[in-house]
Amino acid sequence: MKRRRKLGRGVAVVGVGMTPFNVYKDKDSKDLFVEAFKEMLVSVDKGVDPKDIDALYLGNFTSDFFVHQGHWGPIISDILGLSPIPATRTEGACASSALAFREGVFAVASGFYDIVLVGGVEEMSKRTTEEVAEGLGLALAPYEMQVGFTFPAVFGALATAYFAKYGASREHLMNVTIKSHNNAPLNPRAQFKLTIADLMNQKRENAKKKGEPLPTWKDEKDFLRDPKANPPVAWPMNLYDCCPISDGASCALLVAEDIARDFTDDPLYVVGLGQGSGKGLHAAKDLTCFEATRNAAQEAYGMSGLKPEDIQFAEVHDCFSIAEIIHMEDLGFFKPGEAYKAVENGLTRLDGPIPINTSGGLKCKGHPVGATGVAQLEELWEQLRGKAGKRQIPNKNLRIGGAHNLGGTGGTCTFTILERR
Amino acid sequence: MKRRRKLGRGVAVVGVGMTPFNVYKDKDSKDLFVEAFKEMLVSVDKGVDPKDIDALYLGNFTSDFFVHQGHWGPIISDILGLSPIPATRTEGACASSALAFREGVFAVASGFYDIVLVGGVEEMSKRTTEEVAEGLGLALAPYEMQVGFTFPAVFGALATAYFAKYGASREHLMNVTIKSHNNAPLNPRAQFKLTIADLMNQKRENAKKKGEPLPTWKDEKDFLRDPKANPPVAWPMNLYDCCPISDGASCALLVAEDIARDFTDDPLYVVGLGQGSGKGLHAAKDLTCFEATRNAAQEAYGMSGLKPEDIQFAEVHDCFSIAEIIHMEDLGFFKPGEAYKAVENGLTRLDGPIPINTSGGLKCKGHPVGATGVAQLEELWEQLRGKAGKRQIPNKNLRIGGAHNLGGTGGTCTFTILERR
Repeated sequence: MKRRRKLGRGVAVVGVGMTPFNVYKDKDSKDLFVEAFKEMLVSVDKGVDPKDIDALYLGNFTSDFFVHQGHWGPIISDILGLSPIPATRTEGACASSALAFREGVFAVASGFYDIVLVGGVEEMSKRTTEEVAEGLGLALAPYEMQVGFTFPAVFGALATAYFAKYGASREHLMNVTIKSHNNAPLNPRAQFKLTIADLMNQKRENAKKKGEPLPTWKDEKDFLRDPKANPPVAWPMNLYDCCPISDGASCALLVAEDIARDFTDDPLYVVGLGQGSGKGLHAAKDLTCFEATRNAAQEAYGMSGLKPEDIQFAEVHDCFSIAEIIHMEDLGFFKPGEAYKAVENGLTRLDGPIPINTSGGLKCKGHPVGATGVAQLEELWEQLRGKAGKRQIPNKNLRIGGAHNLGGTGGTCTFTILERR
Repeated sequence: MKRRRKLGRGVAVVGVGMTPFNVYKDKDSKDLFVEAFKEMLVSVDKGVDPKDIDALYLGNFTSDFFVHQGHWGPIISDILGLSPIPATRTEGACASSALAFREGVFAVASGFYDIVLVGGVEEMSKRTTEEVAEGLGLALAPYEMQVGFTFPAVFGALATAYFAKYGASREHLMNVTIKSHNNAPLNPRAQFKLTIADLMNQKRENAKKKGEPLPTWKDEKDFLRDPKANPPVAWPMNLYDCCPISDGASCALLVAEDIARDFTDDPLYVVGLGQGSGKGLHAAKDLTCFEATRNAAQEAYGMSGLKPEDIQFAEVHDCFSIAEIIHMEDLGFFKPGEAYKAVENGLTRLDGPIPINTSGGLKCKGHPVGATGVAQLEELWEQLRGKAGKRQIPNKNLRIGGAHNLGGTGGTCTFTILERR
């Protein structure tokens, strides 16, 4: 990076909307995006006339594959009644809508537009699990696919490398899972709303009803160690290390900073914007970090003038438990080899000094891949504006949050910092 | 459109590169983009160090479908040695790389970056014709696909509507085809380098060799009327009304206006930028115009302060002959119902007052869909800088050119105006 990145014109977020993430057998991508859009309209304190929206940026990974329909920009602008405004699709695998957000920011910061809608959508659940695995495989680096890697296998390899280098173990990954499951029931939009303890009780009740012998798990980790309860996927990734298959949509309204107060007295400002690209495992010098995340962090911190210790809470891309641990190190929240200890010590819990994935994360909130990036910003919006309800971070002086989104196996990473003033 | 669009910081094109468009059975998308990139590096008069490139924008329609690989941003940044810089894919069907160009302009105009690589790539020919038709179908509006429309059928319907409204006929479409085929042999990068007269001679020679009766076409139109020589595809679209299936890549280097002269003494300036989205045929009030192109034109003329009559030449998206006619009207070069007469009267020929598709157009230069938008700008670059060789427009005072790119059946349209100062 050659110089400090800055925007010629400031940009603010003045509204957000999202569907709950879930499996929707009776709704398609259009239905989902309309739902998110309506929620966004309501979220703008002083209101917005859709006719004033200048352009649309839509993140979508591969509806080409999942629902056999491409070219979603104009489909969504049509269904929202926004045609003929420009409608551009961005794709960066699971980071597709973080890219839409970023292009929306640039379009406003350039001076060309004043009011831009950004969002993302993905519709995955109507395909079989095998087809979803094939579709997600399109986001792997080419050499990874050729040697038979799947997503859980790649992250399993990263975890193995991390364990070998730093002495961590599956027991430490379980801490991430337990923490995310503790946050999720507090989020009405989460796909899985049960803690691990709730799951244990549920399974005990089921066994009782069926007259089967009662499971004898001592505690949550004991449950996660049980291969019947938490079956292996790709060593050391077991079922509860992996995010689910989801459908959903998310969107946000961006406006020029100078007009933000026409929409709300409480806008959030885009103070840090970062992105990076990675080479894939075939060329990675070190499997225990993501070069793309480091580049994204460097850009975002550089623009904002902030340091990692200034980030009060963050959504961190936890497609797999190990991803949350490694990315927290790449973002500078903890030193390399320290994040797994931080999780164990409760530092990333809702009541800890740096709460991570208060939404439940991808693991429990769900991961309709193209919608995830902007949905992370929705969590920042609710927390920073003090509207996160039962999962509100107790820190009374919450001002700065970060959202980190990953595409593929490190091919695309973004880091976005929002500030409440 | 609410106000005149403008950029806070000017942006210039200082280099371009493309592969010849063709069928490449032995080259993949990576090979093709590397070839375009190397040509771009050589085109920068004072040179550029790839290490100074801040970000990459890549247009691609659906490699997800065509080559079963998505997430091309980081694949290309890796193969060019540019990782870990940000690499973002844009998709707008056949206008995908015009969107990449536009996002590159915004990224520089925003002040965030100074030097951005934009481009596009598509690899289509390794699929069967039926598979390519299925892949292209992903860009149709959903309702069009459901009722069995294909691309030639949609444009056939538009032509039929245009004929009915304005009294044009297939004979007028033939004028477009003949003109494009006259330009193509002058372009070393064109996929088809034969005029219609050349084709007639070739077929006569073949008949002579085989001892078959010699064809008795009186002239080029007589050849195009012959259903054996020019078979019907979807009334009134015949084979020579349709662009071919192609592979190829294109790229351009964008820099901030204030540093443009560090790269060349002869930069081209981005003076007009426009985009629009369309609803698809199911909701179109009029089949003889494209609302998205009209919005794109309005934005681009608005930003530039130019009028249609100021555009001295243009590349116009001619996926089918009728598309060139309708779009020339939407861009304001001719009044509605007048463009077909203008072509007949030679106004759009290389030596006419407003030469259109001097490159040979999509029809003859080829149409690897994701690469087309930026390749159109390559033609502007060569013409404006007086380096178009045998197809150089004779106007000695060439200063302003336009490039119009269409995605789908009008879902996405862009119009870009470049100026030489």
